[in-house]
Amino acid sequence: MAFRASRYFPILEWGREYRRETLVNDLIAAVIVTIMLIPQSLAYAMLAGLPPVVGLYASILPLIAYAIFGTSRTLAVGPVAILSLMTAAAAGKIAAQGSPEYIQAAVILALLSGAILLVLGLLRMGFLANFLSHPVVSGFITASGIIIAASQLKHILGISAGGHNLFEIVVSLWQNIGATNIPTLIIGGASLIFLFGARKYMKPALKAVGLPEKAATIITRTGPVFAVVASILAVALLQLQEDGVKILREVPRDLPTIGVPAFDREIWMQLLGSAALIALIGFVESVSVAQTLAAKRRQRISPNQELIGLGASSLAAGISSGYPVTGGLARSAVNFDAGAETPAAGAFTAIGIAFATVFLTPYLYYLPQAVLAATIIVAVLSLVDLKAIRQVWSYSKSDFVAMAATILVTLFSGVELGVTTGVALSLFLHLYNTSRPHFALVGQVPGTHHFRNVNRHAVVISDKALIIRIDESLYFANARFLEDTVYCVISNRPDLEHLVLMCPAVNRIDASGLESLEAINERLRDASVTLHLSEIKGPVMDRLNRSHFLEELSGNVYLNTYDAMEDLDLESVQHAFSRDVKTTDPAAIPCPSLALAGFERA
Amino acid sequence: MAFRASRYFPILEWGREYRRETLVNDLIAAVIVTIMLIPQSLAYAMLAGLPPVVGLYASILPLIAYAIFGTSRTLAVGPVAILSLMTAAAAGKIAAQGSPEYIQAAVILALLSGAILLVLGLLRMGFLANFLSHPVVSGFITASGIIIAASQLKHILGISAGGHNLFEIVVSLWQNIGATNIPTLIIGGASLIFLFGARKYMKPALKAVGLPEKAATIITRTGPVFAVVASILAVALLQLQEDGVKILREVPRDLPTIGVPAFDREIWMQLLGSAALIALIGFVESVSVAQTLAAKRRQRISPNQELIGLGASSLAAGISSGYPVTGGLARSAVNFDAGAETPAAGAFTAIGIAFATVFLTPYLYYLPQAVLAATIIVAVLSLVDLKAIRQVWSYSKSDFVAMAATILVTLFSGVELGVTTGVALSLFLHLYNTSRPHFALVGQVPGTHHFRNVNRHAVVISDKALIIRIDESLYFANARFLEDTVYCVISNRPDLEHLVLMCPAVNRIDASGLESLEAINERLRDASVTLHLSEIKGPVMDRLNRSHFLEELSGNVYLNTYDAMEDLDLESVQHAFSRDVKTTDPAAIPCPSLALAGFERA
Repeated sequence: MAFRASRYFPILEWGREYRRETLVNDLIAAVIVTIMLIPQSLAYAMLAGLPPVVGLYASILPLIAYAIFGTSRTLAVGPVAILSLMTAAAAGKIAAQGSPEYIQAAVILALLSGAILLVLGLLRMGFLANFLSHPVVSGFITASGIIIAASQLKHILGISAGGHNLFEIVVSLWQNIGATNIPTLIIGGASLIFLFGARKYMKPALKAVGLPEKAATIITRTGPVFAVVASILAVALLQLQEDGVKILREVPRDLPTIGVPAFDREIWMQLLGSAALIALIGFVESVSVAQTLAAKRRQRISPNQELIGLGASSLAAGISSGYPVTGGLARSAVNFDAGAETPAAGAFTAIGIAFATVFLTPYLYYLPQAVLAATIIVAVLSLVDLKAIRQVWSYSKSDFVAMAATILVTLFSGVELGVTTGVALSLFLHLYNTSRPHFALVGQVPGTHHFRNVNRHAVVISDKALIIRIDESLYFANARFLEDTVYCVISNRPDLEHLVLMCPAVNRIDASGLESLEAINERLRDASVTLHLSEIKGPVMDRLNRSHFLEELSGNVYLNTYDAMEDLDLESVQHAFSRDVKTTDPAAIPCPSLALAGFERA
Repeated sequence: MAFRASRYFPILEWGREYRRETLVNDLIAAVIVTIMLIPQSLAYAMLAGLPPVVGLYASILPLIAYAIFGTSRTLAVGPVAILSLMTAAAAGKIAAQGSPEYIQAAVILALLSGAILLVLGLLRMGFLANFLSHPVVSGFITASGIIIAASQLKHILGISAGGHNLFEIVVSLWQNIGATNIPTLIIGGASLIFLFGARKYMKPALKAVGLPEKAATIITRTGPVFAVVASILAVALLQLQEDGVKILREVPRDLPTIGVPAFDREIWMQLLGSAALIALIGFVESVSVAQTLAAKRRQRISPNQELIGLGASSLAAGISSGYPVTGGLARSAVNFDAGAETPAAGAFTAIGIAFATVFLTPYLYYLPQAVLAATIIVAVLSLVDLKAIRQVWSYSKSDFVAMAATILVTLFSGVELGVTTGVALSLFLHLYNTSRPHFALVGQVPGTHHFRNVNRHAVVISDKALIIRIDESLYFANARFLEDTVYCVISNRPDLEHLVLMCPAVNRIDASGLESLEAINERLRDASVTLHLSEIKGPVMDRLNRSHFLEELSGNVYLNTYDAMEDLDLESVQHAFSRDVKTTDPAAIPCPSLALAGFERA
């Protein structure tokens, strides 16, 4: 493939066609997203245990980097809840919250996770993110949401509390609940009620008074801004900080300085694993948001280029004193609804945040932490998806096991162990399930060319031939299982002359599968049973032709199974010896692997 | 399933029908196997760095244990080359060869690997061995064979040499080659020539003088005994040990004492990983031998009960001062050919070896080590299978990569790292390959009900509908790839009204696959494309019925694809807009994942 600069710099693609009306739309969207991002950035920085201004820093350069390298037209990047929690967990292993080393660890995490994404993108290794299965990611997000919400309760109550897992957090809250600060609780509680209420009733109300759908959606999403403004006014007027209400106080008005922390091999290596998890989780979340939005306009994102775009964003966060960022669901939806047409909207948002950092922060002096905590709680509780747990339970027990393990380990041990446990378990269960594939003993549906499972249909079978349909690709983990099944079958059938393996669902036969087929062929020959194959797929046949197997095969390869029955002259035998298996002793075919039983099939 | 004692004690099954003629056959086989096992046991103990008598100890109780618990009628267990090498590698990490701690480590390895096999068997976890793919096992055995042969050359030359990998061994041999002992080299060289010659020419020669096939085979296999006897006579008569020929000298005539070494947590934990590898490799090798022999007589082995049988054998080796054992290919073949009918033959062999230990060892005093080394070299070089490497190369590049890595790491780093590298790589490559499945854009073969790949056949397709055949189960690792493919397709086809996913080869849809289908359905709806499914398999449909997907599906589920075309009234459109894709611009469908390209498909 020839090198095309626009592949790595999508800005060259859309930048060429940039028009005045696009500019207007992008500008409007940028203003709305900026208003939404200011409280969010401050809140997520607090969640990550970082000074509030770091959240603003993480919302300036990264947006410009994504505008240059990203492929989604409408994705809005910046700090998000899950990555903030993961940053806190990782940096907390290096230093105490609030210390300069802690802040520096967050910067290193941004640089490392950005570099990892960039390298994966350049190597086109985006598929690695696929090993995070949906149930694991969904369980992880639900558990993280619960932990985040619990950890913010102390700000609502105005108490000090700690804890690294749900159990510790709850115990610590309970121990300190006596110290609850009533004014803080009133502000926090009111904010929670307002924000939950706004989420539920504001949109219908706005629509009822005649606002169009989109405007109602956007105003509802920027709800936190009203809580911010109202609470600042209340605290400033009543001077509630003197009653113990914790407020934001002075936020530095400087723009971020550009630079990287000194390289300390030991600390960087210690953070590498955490950075990789942050990179992958951030990527998975962002790509799913970007794909949803792109599909709505029949646009397309390139997952590998997204790695580069998000990597550049996190690197940009790292060199500007920020912390790991990714594409966020809520802000991207607002950006999309507000009419953003190109990533330029993101660049304009960056300018808006930079402006706010310099000129707006003095007005945030009286902003109570409880309001930020309420913003976080409302945002993350929308991520908690208990319905998904129930659906996965009813759909697949195997997926449920991986999901439940992810949730429990995340809740009671930690985010990193939680997600790695989930990935390892889902890989193991997948391999386990495919290592015990479904085999069906099939017979002819009388009078037709169709062959169906003897356990599901009334079919006729021959006493001198068996037809086994293999419902899985043959690879090393199940090759021996196929052998076991076949040997079991022939050990029960001394009268057997032919065995037909029907392969319409065999998408791949690896070298182990081939060797098992060779072993089966040879051992059946020793036992005077002829082995035939039928309905082999094109690509599988292409490959078998590159081996010697087809020359050594004792029987034939048939395009379809009916040909096999005709050619082997089994028809008359079928009628003579035919029987409906359902009415005879099922123990006639006792090999367990031929049943529909098993963990995954239950 | 009800508890049946004979399931766990197969001896109850065959013991009931034991007759006089069975006894005679078993006794004859036992005598022949005993003759073969004596030099082999001594040689493999030497290879493992253990006193020769340990090899005899490992050939007594383990055989009796297998006779009670094993399911193969003809498998002969005992020390084997590969496990001897692995034992040397593992014990060498604990102590110096020849030290009491070293010998004790070998005993602990036997106990641990036996316990691991037993536990896996009781938990019915035999499938774990499936993760050792054929190419990895074959590559591992080839590399081990080369290392073993190289390590024995020093005995042929009569020099001291060391080294833990092929490179070190060759360098060490080269540095010490000046000290070659000529009488030793003559004995060793003559043994090698005799043994290789016997392997190649003895059987045809014996058959030429009128011996039946089986007898010729058996006599050929016991060839080493002739070399042993001749060399003992030569050394004893010429007193060659005085010229520097290393001989066996005194072998203790005691039978093994029963007992277990003191439990030292640290050492046992250190050996646990090695024991697990020894257990798995031994099991894989033994099961493949047992299955080959069982199939010849239409008998059957139970892999899970084999775990118990082999576990009991290794435990028996451990409590009788032996070292890890498993079923060996050569001796089992001799046992089979010699007419063994039941595992009683193994018990009789054990009695034979015990007899030899007490009464025969004095006659082995003058046995030169060079002859044992020659026995080993000839045995292991038959394990080296270079043809398999070439076959795997031509059949599957992906398998070849795993195989080559196993060989290179085993040769140049070590056996344990070699086999773990191979397993990890083959798992990764399998997941990688299934994560980028084959999708085919299909069209109708004109005038038929068949639908085929547009890249392989001249077919007609409609301009308002696309049919994509999915050639893989949908699971988390490829779910997103399916989404990418579909979004790519629709982003290129603004005129599209229908998308049909054809699923005859989809054996499984996990929760991630389901979620991707839901996302596709929803996003296609946003883009005004209707999604249909066709040819879904029974078990997959059963499961989809447990979700809400089918209710939300914008289109229909069709039993076959032709019904879909009929129902969607696309036939006329097909004819109006039909085209043979081969003759038009292939860039019309540019999404890369729809091509047959890719690493594994090349």
